Amino acid sequence: MVVLSVLEERYESLSPSEFFYRNREIAGFSNPTRALYQTVRELVENSLDATELHKIPPDIKIIISIKEPPDLVSILVEDNGIGIPHEEVPFVFGRVFYGSKYVLRQSRGVFGLGIKMAVLYAQITTGKPIWIRTSTMNSKIIAEYRIKMDISRNMPIVISANFRKKRSKWHGTIVKLITKGNWTLARRRIEDYIRRTAMITPYADIYFKGPDVELIFKRNTRKMPTPPKVGKPHPYGIDLEMLRRLIEIHNRNITLRDFIMKCFEGVGEGIAHNFLEWARLNGDKKLKDLSTSEIENLLNKMKSYRGWRRPRALSLSPLGEDLLRKGIERILSPEYVVTVTRKTSSYSGNPFIVEVGLAWGGKIPMVRSPILYRFANKIPLLYDEGVDVARQVVDKIDWSLYRVKFPAPLAVIVHLCSTKVPFKGVGKEAIADVVEVEKEIENAIKEAARSLRKYLTLIERKRALIAKRITISKYIPEVARALAEVTGTSETKIAKKLSLILDRIMRTESKKRGDIDHE
Amino acid sequence: MVVLSVLEERYESLSPSEFFYRNREIAGFSNPTRALYQTVRELVENSLDATELHKIPPDIKIIISIKEPPDLVSILVEDNGIGIPHEEVPFVFGRVFYGSKYVLRQSRGVFGLGIKMAVLYAQITTGKPIWIRTSTMNSKIIAEYRIKMDISRNMPIVISANFRKKRSKWHGTIVKLITKGNWTLARRRIEDYIRRTAMITPYADIYFKGPDVELIFKRNTRKMPTPPKVGKPHPYGIDLEMLRRLIEIHNRNITLRDFIMKCFEGVGEGIAHNFLEWARLNGDKKLKDLSTSEIENLLNKMKSYRGWRRPRALSLSPLGEDLLRKGIERILSPEYVVTVTRKTSSYSGNPFIVEVGLAWGGKIPMVRSPILYRFANKIPLLYDEGVDVARQVVDKIDWSLYRVKFPAPLAVIVHLCSTKVPFKGVGKEAIADVVEVEKEIENAIKEAARSLRKYLTLIERKRALIAKRITISKYIPEVARALAEVTGTSETKIAKKLSLILDRIMRTESKKRGDIDHE
Repeated sequence: MVVLSVLEERYESLSPSEFFYRNREIAGFSNPTRALYQTVRELVENSLDATELHKIPPDIKIIISIKEPPDLVSILVEDNGIGIPHEEVPFVFGRVFYGSKYVLRQSRGVFGLGIKMAVLYAQITTGKPIWIRTSTMNSKIIAEYRIKMDISRNMPIVISANFRKKRSKWHGTIVKLITKGNWTLARRRIEDYIRRTAMITPYADIYFKGPDVELIFKRNTRKMPTPPKVGKPHPYGIDLEMLRRLIEIHNRNITLRDFIMKCFEGVGEGIAHNFLEWARLNGDKKLKDLSTSEIENLLNKMKSYRGWRRPRALSLSPLGEDLLRKGIERILSPEYVVTVTRKTSSYSGNPFIVEVGLAWGGKIPMVRSPILYRFANKIPLLYDEGVDVARQVVDKIDWSLYRVKFPAPLAVIVHLCSTKVPFKGVGKEAIADVVEVEKEIENAIKEAARSLRKYLTLIERKRALIAKRITISKYIPEVARALAEVTGTSETKIAKKLSLILDRIMRTESKKRGDIDHE
Repeated sequence: MVVLSVLEERYESLSPSEFFYRNREIAGFSNPTRALYQTVRELVENSLDATELHKIPPDIKIIISIKEPPDLVSILVEDNGIGIPHEEVPFVFGRVFYGSKYVLRQSRGVFGLGIKMAVLYAQITTGKPIWIRTSTMNSKIIAEYRIKMDISRNMPIVISANFRKKRSKWHGTIVKLITKGNWTLARRRIEDYIRRTAMITPYADIYFKGPDVELIFKRNTRKMPTPPKVGKPHPYGIDLEMLRRLIEIHNRNITLRDFIMKCFEGVGEGIAHNFLEWARLNGDKKLKDLSTSEIENLLNKMKSYRGWRRPRALSLSPLGEDLLRKGIERILSPEYVVTVTRKTSSYSGNPFIVEVGLAWGGKIPMVRSPILYRFANKIPLLYDEGVDVARQVVDKIDWSLYRVKFPAPLAVIVHLCSTKVPFKGVGKEAIADVVEVEKEIENAIKEAARSLRKYLTLIERKRALIAKRITISKYIPEVARALAEVTGTSETKIAKKLSLILDRIMRTESKKRGDIDHE
């Protein structure tokens, strides 16, 4: 060991996997309970991305069993997704910062980190490799791997690789790993996670089997959201580095005009012309002739021009009001649901869409403040609700304006879709308070709350009518007796007649007020 | 551009700097306000580490000026630290995951990330390099560099390097960068940060000049905490990967007995003997003869043995009760302070120490719940208080048991020192709820609160005595008049005499109850 004097420091370089090995709590792998939950989550989210992004209705199977009591746990996740090209498998599972999610498109995975952290955690706690079976749709083989990581070099170690002919049409991926985890403590979180995942993917079949639990969620629709497309950057979303790179990777012989039309979101001939004129830039200048300061000037001009189109939603994939309703019904079985999908909005050039659902009554328990279900790019967020912008908005809203008096059976579902969700950390558990996002969540909740108010108003009127009917009914026997005495007709007959008349009046009254039966 | 079918994905690898460039909000660089604060913070913390860890009383100078309105800001930070060896400068500032902080020792920096993020942010928003002047204590030259980063390769780009003879005894580092930032919005945070830094470093001279503000904190002590030593891992703190590496880097010819004595914290001959006997392991076996499963067995045995010594505090550097009190007095000017430094404790093999201060009255405003000042390894934590374990503990405590009735002028200072602070993210703003840490914070606060209660009890008694005195005084003229009539002595004389008697009684009373003047 090198001995250093007190006035010296020893400098060294870490590989990315070394860094995350030392700081695994940053990615949510802080202890065996959290690590187990996080592992399940990363595997399930990869499986959903592998199906849903390619319009395959997901069939996901999750099997957890206790391998060696008390804390060696085996986790298997299987999907019917597009599979992984077999030459990519070692890197996808064994190299930090390697992946296919580094494009401008909404997906669950973004950091290219989660699955590697699961492999790493399994390896350092049990010493065991991860096992993978996969086949792509057009492949004629099925590949099976066992992989570990060389942490200090950030490279995969292939323990075994096995290729065999594919005789069926099977495609997809099965991953199995043995990790240290506390099932008893993690169980509730994992169940909750799977339930919420089922809420946001009503078109997915999800089967979950744990040591002492089995959950089966059959899809209640085959309709799927339109998959997102890979998008181009928006002029408001770029920085100097990005602009330089875009210039670098393009044919430097093209003109500035062609460049901005080709490389940026929503820039057509008209907008390009207007921008160049406004910015006093020569559109015919070749990219290769731009000096450093001209590039800086171009950036500043692009950022301050007000004539760009707003970012579009092509690279986003919201659920839509119908599917969101289906999902909420499948899990919460409420008496009433309203869903709202807002139009595309944007922050710093990143397009985003907010979806909100309000669910009332039915199996929802009475609570002192709304139960909140948070989702970002279809990922359920379970931890750190206290610092999430959605919680702040929900708490800020004056629910009494919408005829909600707590305790009440109210759940709020908030879903944020974006090519760049402003997460507060790599653990992906809370959304930062970006002003534009906050405003949209607020507007979406208020919009939905207005529908809820209408519903609650009707319910109240209906109750009032029923109460009125009961009150009036009480007098029928007495009136009938009096009339029977006067007219000599049978008391029972008169009472029946009166009841029918009352029913008719109530129905008319009810219609007049625009009431309808809710079912 | 490659066109991909909907059923294919494109895989790619990111460099660490590319990763953090794309996900800069994770490291706290989410917008120009936060980025400005974060940049100041990273620079100041590097400066404090460069002085304090080497027992140099820190002289820190921070100068912020607006370079180009509205949002081009220049930041300069200067220290009298040990300096950076000039050949290391490019990597220290231009390469992510490169640094000197990757050892088992308490320091402010741990991720080797912060300063690089500041460089990166400046570069992508202004295109300008960072400027550094540095000289180590024994060096005969002063080095000056201008550095940028090659983000996709994670390598420094040296724009200019300049070496000149050192004629003075100067050593230290000056860093200057120009970044995009919103001074108006960041100002309050930055001031707050510097004030709190001054609170936790009473032995530091800190000078801060902003565009419209100047803060000067002169040290009020020259005593400094003992710098931490680089420690060895504790048997409870290791995992399979670490154990394998330790075996790898050691002479594989040594015996198992020598290995555990040499490589682990607090393992002497006796403990080694007891452990090997308990674990039924052959201590004479050579390291090179251990099989994979024997290594796994060794790990399990080490983790379950209950006879290890608890981790020691050699690698920690708490402030201590005196310095913490000095720091609190320098910033809060309270009427009363109590400080508590707890003994070393540990979680998962990581030693930690909790220090707590309670400050009452003086310039502290009346608040509905205690003002909380959080510190971790002498870093002030400003954001995300809501999810910090310290806030949870403070809110859980029943303050009325300690005679505190809110609103009250109470501030709680919590300082956690550890070789591994369980931060919730790379932004280093909140401490995760590790059970052992939570318990220690609670115990520390309660211990301090008992002293506070004593003080408040005395204060109350004193107030009661004063009230009593006032009440009795009211009767003196009347009694004096009556006595004057009876005795014929002058009324004034008697009144004076009675006053003196009352004073004497009050003093005796006060002493009997153990009261003392507080000052």
